[in-house]
Amino acid sequence: MAFVLAARQLACSPQQKLRLLVPGSRYISQAAAKVDVEFDYDAPLMKTEVPGPRSRELMKQLNIIQNAEAVHFFCNYEESRGNYLVDVDGNRMLDLYSQISSVPIGYSHPALVKVLQQPQNVSTFINRPALGILPPENFVERLQESLMSVAPKGMSQLITMACGSCSNENAFKTIFMWYRAPGCPDYSILSFMGAFHGRTLGCLATTHSKSIHKIDIPSFDWPIAPFPRLKYPLEEFVKENQQEEARCLEEVEDLIVKYRKKKKTVVGVIVEPIQSEGGDNHASDDFFRKLRDITRKHGCAFLVDEVQTGGGCTGKFWAHEHWDLDDPADLMTFSKKMMTGGFFHKEEFRPNAPYRIFNTWLGDPAKNLLLAEVINVIKREDLLDNAARAGKVLLTGLLDLQARYPQFISRVRGRGTFCSFDTPDESVRNKLILIARNKGVVLGGCGDKSIRFRPMLVFREHHAHLFLNIFSDILADFK
Amino acid sequence: MAFVLAARQLACSPQQKLRLLVPGSRYISQAAAKVDVEFDYDAPLMKTEVPGPRSRELMKQLNIIQNAEAVHFFCNYEESRGNYLVDVDGNRMLDLYSQISSVPIGYSHPALVKVLQQPQNVSTFINRPALGILPPENFVERLQESLMSVAPKGMSQLITMACGSCSNENAFKTIFMWYRAPGCPDYSILSFMGAFHGRTLGCLATTHSKSIHKIDIPSFDWPIAPFPRLKYPLEEFVKENQQEEARCLEEVEDLIVKYRKKKKTVVGVIVEPIQSEGGDNHASDDFFRKLRDITRKHGCAFLVDEVQTGGGCTGKFWAHEHWDLDDPADLMTFSKKMMTGGFFHKEEFRPNAPYRIFNTWLGDPAKNLLLAEVINVIKREDLLDNAARAGKVLLTGLLDLQARYPQFISRVRGRGTFCSFDTPDESVRNKLILIARNKGVVLGGCGDKSIRFRPMLVFREHHAHLFLNIFSDILADFK
Repeated sequence: MAFVLAARQLACSPQQKLRLLVPGSRYISQAAAKVDVEFDYDAPLMKTEVPGPRSRELMKQLNIIQNAEAVHFFCNYEESRGNYLVDVDGNRMLDLYSQISSVPIGYSHPALVKVLQQPQNVSTFINRPALGILPPENFVERLQESLMSVAPKGMSQLITMACGSCSNENAFKTIFMWYRAPGCPDYSILSFMGAFHGRTLGCLATTHSKSIHKIDIPSFDWPIAPFPRLKYPLEEFVKENQQEEARCLEEVEDLIVKYRKKKKTVVGVIVEPIQSEGGDNHASDDFFRKLRDITRKHGCAFLVDEVQTGGGCTGKFWAHEHWDLDDPADLMTFSKKMMTGGFFHKEEFRPNAPYRIFNTWLGDPAKNLLLAEVINVIKREDLLDNAARAGKVLLTGLLDLQARYPQFISRVRGRGTFCSFDTPDESVRNKLILIARNKGVVLGGCGDKSIRFRPMLVFREHHAHLFLNIFSDILADFK
Repeated sequence: MAFVLAARQLACSPQQKLRLLVPGSRYISQAAAKVDVEFDYDAPLMKTEVPGPRSRELMKQLNIIQNAEAVHFFCNYEESRGNYLVDVDGNRMLDLYSQISSVPIGYSHPALVKVLQQPQNVSTFINRPALGILPPENFVERLQESLMSVAPKGMSQLITMACGSCSNENAFKTIFMWYRAPGCPDYSILSFMGAFHGRTLGCLATTHSKSIHKIDIPSFDWPIAPFPRLKYPLEEFVKENQQEEARCLEEVEDLIVKYRKKKKTVVGVIVEPIQSEGGDNHASDDFFRKLRDITRKHGCAFLVDEVQTGGGCTGKFWAHEHWDLDDPADLMTFSKKMMTGGFFHKEEFRPNAPYRIFNTWLGDPAKNLLLAEVINVIKREDLLDNAARAGKVLLTGLLDLQARYPQFISRVRGRGTFCSFDTPDESVRNKLILIARNKGVVLGGCGDKSIRFRPMLVFREHHAHLFLNIFSDILADFK
């Protein structure tokens, strides 16, 4: 087990410039120079199986007050650093799942520690305002230096929200208010099979990734279009994939016409740049450009949900920037790695009266403060380029593993570090995740049988090599 | 203007035991001893009209990126302390609205400053986990010492959420999952006219406080029952009010039967202990006990929304504790003063599988940490008793003002500090709020023409006297 040989000492000492590398590793020898040596660990370090005895004890305690069956293990966040998550039994794992893709620049980043320690920031953390009526003095300035500095093309307007679900719910409402045709009986939002847009009742009407999410819950009769199911490797299935995308787009148009006839006018289309919870389903940039054209043609708003794809992990700040749209999207929601939820939109979608898009908190200045520093770090450390580079190493390595273990790995795909592959079935997928965890790597599943990579933005080329080394050993032993 | 005569110096010096009182005041002379002298100011201090020039400049800037018409003024939270909100133009106001009722123990409370300054707490503020899968080691312990220590009677189960809307959305889902009758075509939640339960699409189907909230937004066909419209003073209209409540309860039962027949089975009833946004509409404890009986009789879940009433302001930790139910409610949602959203519920409502009530963050341990300290302070300083006592002074004073100014003030009502009165119309109401603000008191409106009091839990008897003194002067001059 290669990782056991790696250096166990903390990489906290700034003077430490050299690293112990795994001898003879196929990947580690290409490791790039570390720039975040000051707060990252060197390698996984496992002491018990996971969940260990302390985690199991705490799971029992939690299960008394809520269903705790989804808990993987309990964590020691004080000891977690950079790409490494430490659990309550002292196990240190390379975290490629990052709290369901929601940690931007790693655990306990020194820049964020500093934000917390600055006396002038105390008030922001303990005096939470009702932002819509009584914002703090630096509210606009902070939005300008953080979110507005990464505003997607064409979108000059911004509302913050506390979470991703509230962001999508309020983006829907913004669309309904924008559309309002007098006498129009009812509106709908078109979404795609396999999509995940949240679990509150409005969002849930557009979420179709797993049936368990929707059982027993009343919903709206809103149209659901098929999302392309691409064949891999893409270069071998160019024509088939084009046909598949054309079929889906045709169905989108048919549904828009059909729902208009049944007086449930489609006023907006919501889509993820990469369907994440639904199984990391990609479509071509061309598909999204054509989808945008269809929404324009039929007068529907085009809403891009970047809750999981946003924040830099695809190598651009927003995944939909890869599409290079001439006619920008109308609205875009975010959350997770952005630390606050919210959405950008074009000026024409601006509500025509106060209190129409409103709730008590409308986000949280404490999160805006942390986000401003996160965006500073992303810019200062070129973390978008880093995601592109580290992602390339990861994807290349996964393609190599796919070539060597086609019985376990197929449909390798990805953009930046936002990578994934399919396994033969759910049982193999879950087994691989558990084995990897006990070898010191936290992975996440998605869809029926996919494994998704959601590392943080401080995931470097050498982390990719480290993972590939460990996973290669796992596959060599896997039966 | 009495308040100008009050001491302008900060009340921060612990040695300061005596206070300058307004000479000849009708109320101030009864002021109780201050126990929070160390962090509160003495009195309002006004330098400009509100919003002042700096606020107006910032409003213009904010309006470039979002509709900022709802903004009252911009705040200097660093300088805000205790019951006093300081704006960016240096005006210091007694805050009886507390960020739409969401500040529990006053601005910049020293106990919360201390929580922020303790090095062992840094990690909690910068490493936000996905609580449902990877909770921190102290998660259960922290819930036990905070939320579970104030769990309502009969409710052993707890889920945290990021905001009030998500709390109600997920409480609805919990009810739907609990009910699930095989083959049942569709479910509904019964709510009341005038209710406010949030603005996401599921919540909005139960919100009926203002029509602007719902225009253009698709909704569910769920039943809406009338909420009692009580006549005041209560002791003069005993029989009429009993009849009014009986009429509403009868309508609830009729709607349950009607919606069952139309295959939209009512599986839950949601109600606020005091309808807040809708105009501070009260009903008797007897009304709620009978409503609980009706839900039991028809097999519907009984969900109490304590987002605004919870946290101690009525003199009990939860307003519905005043009802003294033999058969406890089934679920109760909270947010605002609790700093985190969430809901308690009975064990029989526990989801039967993991991931059914789930989202990425499921609240925020940083808010749980602050809340634990807030609950400590509430207990240590007897702030529930304080709310009862200060509320009594406030209500008595309002009744006195009503007797003296019946042309401006009617229907004075309240429980603890959760008080309100009606004005002749919306225009008078809004004028009074603006005048009060320029005299150094922040008030909130609700319903069509009511003024509501939502002070923090550190609002003491002497603050009530101070307010009554200022407001009495305003009414004497009001035309």
